[in-house]
Amino acid sequence: MSAPTDLEALKKEAAIRAVALVQSGNRVGLGTGSTAKYAIEEIGRKLAAGELTGIVGVATSEASEKLAREVGIPTETLDPRLLDIAIDGADEIAPNLDLIKGLGGALVREKMTEVQAGRLIIIADHTKIVSRLGEKAPLPIEILQFGFLSTVERLREILPAGRLRHTGAQPYVTDNGNYIFDAQLPAEMDVRALERRLKGTLGVVDTGLFLGMAERAFVAAPDGVQELTAKP
Amino acid sequence: MSAPTDLEALKKEAAIRAVALVQSGNRVGLGTGSTAKYAIEEIGRKLAAGELTGIVGVATSEASEKLAREVGIPTETLDPRLLDIAIDGADEIAPNLDLIKGLGGALVREKMTEVQAGRLIIIADHTKIVSRLGEKAPLPIEILQFGFLSTVERLREILPAGRLRHTGAQPYVTDNGNYIFDAQLPAEMDVRALERRLKGTLGVVDTGLFLGMAERAFVAAPDGVQELTAKP
Repeated sequence: MSAPTDLEALKKEAAIRAVALVQSGNRVGLGTGSTAKYAIEEIGRKLAAGELTGIVGVATSEASEKLAREVGIPTETLDPRLLDIAIDGADEIAPNLDLIKGLGGALVREKMTEVQAGRLIIIADHTKIVSRLGEKAPLPIEILQFGFLSTVERLREILPAGRLRHTGAQPYVTDNGNYIFDAQLPAEMDVRALERRLKGTLGVVDTGLFLGMAERAFVAAPDGVQELTAKP
Repeated sequence: MSAPTDLEALKKEAAIRAVALVQSGNRVGLGTGSTAKYAIEEIGRKLAAGELTGIVGVATSEASEKLAREVGIPTETLDPRLLDIAIDGADEIAPNLDLIKGLGGALVREKMTEVQAGRLIIIADHTKIVSRLGEKAPLPIEILQFGFLSTVERLREILPAGRLRHTGAQPYVTDNGNYIFDAQLPAEMDVRALERRLKGTLGVVDTGLFLGMAERAFVAAPDGVQELTAKP
């Protein structure tokens, strides 16, 4: 009953629940990845059906920008105006809704967009729920191409286990033209102190830690979609 | 006697004094800008004359890389190996040899290269000497293109006076593909706390503050070249 096809249907249902929070006239941050795409498709469907009007999408990646256009969502690039809501996936969700994001490679654009959203709604399947960040997923860290070997050495002093992300034989390149170092987090880790230390490291652009940002998560599990809220 | 042509001659003399610290076999960080170019030319001259051998240059910009090749310095890209010495200009030099750099636009590459140098030697003319950083020059801050208007708003909360650098009508683009925000520093400013706060700001790649990095400066003044050392 938790066969992959069922899980896809439940992820889609989680996306539909999240999109139910979008109101006509909203500026909406559009996430990136296999779950977020269901939300983009659902917004497009509601626009086409006349169930939503006046939506403006702000995409977190070139891929999501393309999909949004295909399904008929008017898009704008990010400017300093606030977004009403953003909907995105996550790679790990801690009990307090702290997140690891960035498996899709769009971590910095996602973070810059979603920090401006009045509400950040996460959609995911139940395998993304963890008791602590780093339990299953590596932490993606976006770094400059220039001098990346030196940056990786500096990062390994903080997080010894990790590797540069590759696509085939070549380093993976983000939409910002940077590389990604995927680091394992040790079990005992103050993620807020870690975030400050990583962001302060020469050559680091930003990290996939999304701390204190998400308001709510819709999680697809074999027995249905669970709604989680951040405890203050 | 301080006519521009004399000052150029003195800047060149400062560069020659700095290059006298380079030894055969050294890996040398090559700075960027109108003063650093004299050092690159002097290294090339000494190699051609046989006064230096076995030098490897590591350039801090595409422009310096090109100049180094033209004057016959073998170059390598930055890797984690330490450099013996780096020679570069600066936009402002405080009494303790803290620096503002980045008028030439290569601040991040310069910082990443020079942090690996056993010795950082600064060459400049006397107009770059200040009693506090920010006295004359703006502080360049390298920021991502994506969402730059939002990043500029975040920076203006820290440093209200500043503007995006332009080349003609277009924003200036660094070798890393980023933009630069040039900020005025207020008179009373803990630059170490400022550096941490700026580097921790979403969208910021790095800043032109080079704190505690320079060992020595050769400063061209109308009455000759002065040598300054960092007081511990």
